[in-house]
Amino acid sequence: MIVVMKADATDGEINRVIETIESLGYRPHVSRGVERCIIGAIGDERGKSRLHSLEALPGVESVVPILKPYKLASKQVKDGPSRYQIDGVEIGGTRIVVVAGPCSVESRDQILETARAVKAAGASMLRGGAFKPRTSPYSFQGLGEEGLKLLQEAKAETGLPIQTEVMAPEDVELVARYADVIQIGARNVQNFKLLRRVGEFDIPVCLKRGLSTTIEELLMAAEYILSEGNQKVILCERGIRTFETATRNTLDLNAVPVLKHETHLPVIVDPSHGTGHWRYVTPMAQAAVAAGADGLLIEVHPRPHEAFSDGAQSLKFDNFVTLMQRVAAVAEAVGRSV
Amino acid sequence: MIVVMKADATDGEINRVIETIESLGYRPHVSRGVERCIIGAIGDERGKSRLHSLEALPGVESVVPILKPYKLASKQVKDGPSRYQIDGVEIGGTRIVVVAGPCSVESRDQILETARAVKAAGASMLRGGAFKPRTSPYSFQGLGEEGLKLLQEAKAETGLPIQTEVMAPEDVELVARYADVIQIGARNVQNFKLLRRVGEFDIPVCLKRGLSTTIEELLMAAEYILSEGNQKVILCERGIRTFETATRNTLDLNAVPVLKHETHLPVIVDPSHGTGHWRYVTPMAQAAVAAGADGLLIEVHPRPHEAFSDGAQSLKFDNFVTLMQRVAAVAEAVGRSV
Amino acid sequence: MIVVMKADATDGEINRVIETIESLGYRPHVSRGVERCIIGAIGDERGKSRLHSLEALPGVESVVPILKPYKLASKQVKDGPSRYQIDGVEIGGTRIVVVAGPCSVESRDQILETARAVKAAGASMLRGGAFKPRTSPYSFQGLGEEGLKLLQEAKAETGLPIQTEVMAPEDVELVARYADVIQIGARNVQNFKLLRRVGEFDIPVCLKRGLSTTIEELLMAAEYILSEGNQKVILCERGIRTFETATRNTLDLNAVPVLKHETHLPVIVDPSHGTGHWRYVTPMAQAAVAAGADGLLIEVHPRPHEAFSDGAQSLKFDNFVTLMQRVAAVAEAVGRSV
Amino acid sequence: MIVVMKADATDGEINRVIETIESLGYRPHVSRGVERCIIGAIGDERGKSRLHSLEALPGVESVVPILKPYKLASKQVKDGPSRYQIDGVEIGGTRIVVVAGPCSVESRDQILETARAVKAAGASMLRGGAFKPRTSPYSFQGLGEEGLKLLQEAKAETGLPIQTEVMAPEDVELVARYADVIQIGARNVQNFKLLRRVGEFDIPVCLKRGLSTTIEELLMAAEYILSEGNQKVILCERGIRTFETATRNTLDLNAVPVLKHETHLPVIVDPSHGTGHWRYVTPMAQAAVAAGADGLLIEVHPRPHEAFSDGAQSLKFDNFVTLMQRVAAVAEAVGRSV
Repeated sequence: MIVVMKADATDGEINRVIETIESLGYRPHVSRGVERCIIGAIGDERGKSRLHSLEALPGVESVVPILKPYKLASKQVKDGPSRYQIDGVEIGGTRIVVVAGPCSVESRDQILETARAVKAAGASMLRGGAFKPRTSPYSFQGLGEEGLKLLQEAKAETGLPIQTEVMAPEDVELVARYADVIQIGARNVQNFKLLRRVGEFDIPVCLKRGLSTTIEELLMAAEYILSEGNQKVILCERGIRTFETATRNTLDLNAVPVLKHETHLPVIVDPSHGTGHWRYVTPMAQAAVAAGADGLLIEVHPRPHEAFSDGAQSLKFDNFVTLMQRVAAVAEAVGRSV
Repeated sequence: MIVVMKADATDGEINRVIETIESLGYRPHVSRGVERCIIGAIGDERGKSRLHSLEALPGVESVVPILKPYKLASKQVKDGPSRYQIDGVEIGGTRIVVVAGPCSVESRDQILETARAVKAAGASMLRGGAFKPRTSPYSFQGLGEEGLKLLQEAKAETGLPIQTEVMAPEDVELVARYADVIQIGARNVQNFKLLRRVGEFDIPVCLKRGLSTTIEELLMAAEYILSEGNQKVILCERGIRTFETATRNTLDLNAVPVLKHETHLPVIVDPSHGTGHWRYVTPMAQAAVAAGADGLLIEVHPRPHEAFSDGAQSLKFDNFVTLMQRVAAVAEAVGRSV
Repeated sequence: MIVVMKADATDGEINRVIETIESLGYRPHVSRGVERCIIGAIGDERGKSRLHSLEALPGVESVVPILKPYKLASKQVKDGPSRYQIDGVEIGGTRIVVVAGPCSVESRDQILETARAVKAAGASMLRGGAFKPRTSPYSFQGLGEEGLKLLQEAKAETGLPIQTEVMAPEDVELVARYADVIQIGARNVQNFKLLRRVGEFDIPVCLKRGLSTTIEELLMAAEYILSEGNQKVILCERGIRTFETATRNTLDLNAVPVLKHETHLPVIVDPSHGTGHWRYVTPMAQAAVAAGADGLLIEVHPRPHEAFSDGAQSLKFDNFVTLMQRVAAVAEAVGRSV
Repeated sequence: MIVVMKADATDGEINRVIETIESLGYRPHVSRGVERCIIGAIGDERGKSRLHSLEALPGVESVVPILKPYKLASKQVKDGPSRYQIDGVEIGGTRIVVVAGPCSVESRDQILETARAVKAAGASMLRGGAFKPRTSPYSFQGLGEEGLKLLQEAKAETGLPIQTEVMAPEDVELVARYADVIQIGARNVQNFKLLRRVGEFDIPVCLKRGLSTTIEELLMAAEYILSEGNQKVILCERGIRTFETATRNTLDLNAVPVLKHETHLPVIVDPSHGTGHWRYVTPMAQAAVAAGADGLLIEVHPRPHEAFSDGAQSLKFDNFVTLMQRVAAVAEAVGRSV
């Protein structure tokens, strides 16, 4: 942490900053430049947001953090990539994990039909929401445990592991009984109680970046889970909110190489939510793999125009077959497979 | 809802859209222009997000919603402004409600000292966090129920009603025993389980806009609470996330007149989080009142540089006295009082 | 400028950074912490963006600027507020300067009628575009010099000084013959050739912030004009681009206190473009003055629904009269007048 | 264009809208729904922004455009992709065009050395700035015509066509004498005078998207050039401005499939400016090609840490060789070549 003093800061003001840094347990290091005096606070600053409050002292212009605030998610703890087994499917290795299925589990027929189709096309896992976060209280909110049972049935038939969302701490135990990967949705990325709760389980957690979550905040959210003991976190880029309206969100593929540089955790990409339009899903899935993603999350529906939610961004079965073929070609070009 | 067909849409594609609209229970209304055929779906579209899935049909270019998706929050339900009593303090009337206090309750001395000071300066209510949502798992997370008890003690001494945050559905009952206003933080604005839970109580809820929540989504979040039966919702603008870094967030005061146009619910403004720097809090508080806000949420701390959190944006007591004087002058200019 | 080395940077890498800093004419200052070595580059870093390229050296994690990059626009050069005379109207003093008029000069009747109305309501200056930057090449592009002559006629009759936009370096001389204040539009805020050209004249320049211009970049754009010798720069906040669509842009009133803290230059606000809807213009004009703005830029049209451009955000005459009355009341509350 | 009336709009207000639509030359089409009356304005709405001013009429809630505002850039005019010859290099075909070189031409040695290196690595064209738009007036502004001559010399030796930027209408003729592709920078994307001027030449124009330019506005900027007669426009995605600070900008690769859907014009991507860090350039270049880009714009410098500008995002020669190899592999996977 570096404290930049104002140009006209007095010696008294500088000394008060020095004393405060010492009283907080850090070692001050003063550097007087031509225009400014700057004072470093030497020590492990992570989690020490109290130092920010120094900005309230007279004569202080700004407080600049130097260290990244995450530890367990960083490469300092683990330099190589983390790999997890998800009921026989490895994530974080050379194989690209494709998780496909409908936004919501709507009916037995719909989920079984989809599970068979995505299995046949080469998907590694099945997705489907039983608890749905919806912007409107009047929209379909998911089938709840009934939906989880239908997912279980689809797994029994196809062998595909299941990824499904949990929305509240009190539901984690229930969802963990059915799911192979628990998904934390974008709106819950800073629901800290929920993060802590899934951190208590030994089950892979797919953590989706929020609409306005910085990459650093996403890693801090992962840190909540990791610090409770659950090391199996998968990060998911799914689009951020910008001024552009041609796409539903702005899928930020830059997050892939940035995360690969900063963390050992696997990174997957959701081009369905990221773009919001089925016709952009396949090219962006190809791009995600080319950028280094370890997996994809793809919305597939037997009849998108009848979908209870997200029909506009769901692929029909034949389009999903095409996606898998194209993604396989790109995966091979970057030394991976599907 | 209006369905815009592609320029080269066939009659078959147009007919399929018409049939689908009918099968969903709406009345289609076709309008053939020079360049495009557009088809309206007549009926109450609110909560009917399924219509969006029509975008997946062949020949459809886009689906454009016409009606606003909220009902209970809208002026169609209640044209005049809503007013609530908060233990003797009215919100939504001519008096500007100023809720002041520290970010976190840190100690008995700190909260009592602050309560006395803000009371003396003319504040209407006391704020202070006992459960704190923190970006880092290593930061101070609040005193929990102990903090609530200290707030209660401060209320007993000063008479100021209490506003404090709740982070999880299972804590609502506990917090409601101590608080006069329950606060839902920005990160929980779309924590739908939490919204429904506070909707079951008969206690005013201060709902803070999220960092990337549109005004429409904020009203939909309010709709979750209202639709459970709790009509006492207060909306709070507290800054959105933009590219600008000179301020911690971008306090969006435009939201005040927009909300005043769209809803009957009271609107308050938090310039402390909105700007993130104590020196910008007073001018933006004045601006908020001039824009039509019904109240202010202000962070005040006896010694900001020692604050466990948010010291940089907290006012010292003397600065809060100045704020109150200046806000009073602006309030008078717009026909209100503090 | 501070160079943060990676945790595993070698002594050789550190030495190479030190040597490079010296070779660029700065004095290195090394500080070894627990986790990181950081190296300050002491000297006037402003305009020395070359130091940023140090990020390309092995072992360097990041380069952090410390000083603000502007000089002439800063309070270090001039601590009190700058005041300019605009043909008898002072800007930067206690009086709020209200510049009102149509988006475009459309006809003789339209501009004369408007000039008389805004004069009668108490405006200080007349605005109107003769050269119009339009998103579409098929839209009305302005009357050109004919428009300037009509503005001149309006000034002759009402005595109101004229503010009008210039779009290209080769037109500056022409526009300067007619205008009392030259306006640089939001899209040209980083048209550096144009900035330099208006910097050669001794005429007040109203510089509008771009849709995605940071406050620091706005001050750097002002620095281009100031460094050519023209000291009469007026900064104008007119809305930035965010995810919010309820308003055309997001008027960022936070910029007012931030600019007042950073610069001596006068600051005005354009709530017409900032919100894009006439019904939000008056409350945001009140808020702008409460936040500390030195002036307002308001679109007024005799018959907004017939306007060639920006009708939705233009005030009718009677609404402008109301605006002036309300703004006057707020101005008085903050110790100023209209 | 569709005019949505308020719920309580009177017949008189509806009739006035109908009459105004007719007086502007459009055919009104009224549709009365359960909650709202909506009125379509039938006719070619493109370039007819005057219809927006209807929002100023009493009883009108909003005005919703239906047609895209561009014509010549759209696929309605030309359905297949446009291909141009650039001194023997085709853009828009199956070959990916890689334009590589330094941000600025700094010296004869620097540009010749770079030209040879990128040629050897397989680049198709050479880039280099002679006129530089710089945020600070104190930064290096480019060598001007001397820089153009050095680029010419590099072309003479290597045979690589030249792409270089023009900043002002009066320089277009000069730059066009040296350049094979004229570049319009992000800050000038809505410098309409400059767009019109380059539209008068028969030379390919590479138009870079601005930091806050929507895809629709980018196409409208292209429309300015096309409508002057120059059909050789190349669109370039180079990053937009968002809240994320881990990258300098947010490279918006979604723009590639969106543009491919909307326009016949070739699309290239600049991952150097898009990310701002050399280590993210290669993965994002691979991703751009996988998403469907027709070309890449890559910053390469012999010694990035000595670069006058953009050193942090420039590749060293060996890294550029790696980029070319990896991009070639991805290109092959999507049926193209480098």
